[in-house]
Amino acid sequence: MKHFLLILTFLILCFPVFSQSARERTRIAEEIRSVLLKQVSAWNRGDIQGFMRGYYNSEKLVFISGDNITRGWSPTLERYKRNYDSREKMGVLSFSDLEFTFLSRKAAVVIGSWSLERANDRPHGKFSLVFRRFKKGWRIILDHTS
Amino acid sequence: MKHFLLILTFLILCFPVFSQSARERTRIAEEIRSVLLKQVSAWNRGDIQGFMRGYYNSEKLVFISGDNITRGWSPTLERYKRNYDSREKMGVLSFSDLEFTFLSRKAAVVIGSWSLERANDRPHGKFSLVFRRFKKGWRIILDHTS
Repeated sequence: MKHFLLILTFLILCFPVFSQSARERTRIAEEIRSVLLKQVSAWNRGDIQGFMRGYYNSEKLVFISGDNITRGWSPTLERYKRNYDSREKMGVLSFSDLEFTFLSRKAAVVIGSWSLERANDRPHGKFSLVFRRFKKGWRIILDHTS
Repeated sequence: MKHFLLILTFLILCFPVFSQSARERTRIAEEIRSVLLKQVSAWNRGDIQGFMRGYYNSEKLVFISGDNITRGWSPTLERYKRNYDSREKMGVLSFSDLEFTFLSRKAAVVIGSWSLERANDRPHGKFSLVFRRFKKGWRIILDHTS
């Protein structure tokens, strides 16, 4: 009986490692979607600092855009502030076509489309985001935007 | 004693799940680097099919370039064949500045720079690759190139 309990404990503890239920994936997708929605809301009220809360606040954050790599949370914030120094330039952001790939209980990749509605143009493109789960929640550790 | 052995077995089996040793990371990096080196060699002998062996042979493969998404191994092969329909256009490929992020024992992200030495130009850019470990080895499941 004691052996049975030990083996049962072992199986219960190991199960989540080898299998990720549809329910768990749905929960992860909802958590990540919520991070992205908060980013969009922050952007659209002109709050770049708030937008940046979706990113891993670390010098290890990597942001790739075209042929440029920006490293670290603060330089990424500065880059956004430099490139979008007015509400007109920020426009109205939207994300669409989100697709999730679940890599582990603590890592996922999201691809999608971004677009900015502005007075005179509508820049748009694709992104791929690597998310990791931290104590504070899911955060982007790598953003590749094109 | 039997309980001790059961607990020991449990700990040994669970350990790799929670911790990834520097040694294991080095091994993963070497395995992935080898896949990329084989891709470069194939490309530089004009073998696009061989180059494609680094990619997950599945309709789930995703290839993002600029504002375009190509889905599936065969359409990605066709895209390469279309865009690089001569040895002159293929040029001499090199990858550099490889950086690895280890997400689990079966998933990793690699960022780096690519460039093509050609007679009249030298196109170059960045890539981020999501690798997964399959029975056949590590394969790219998502390529975002810019």
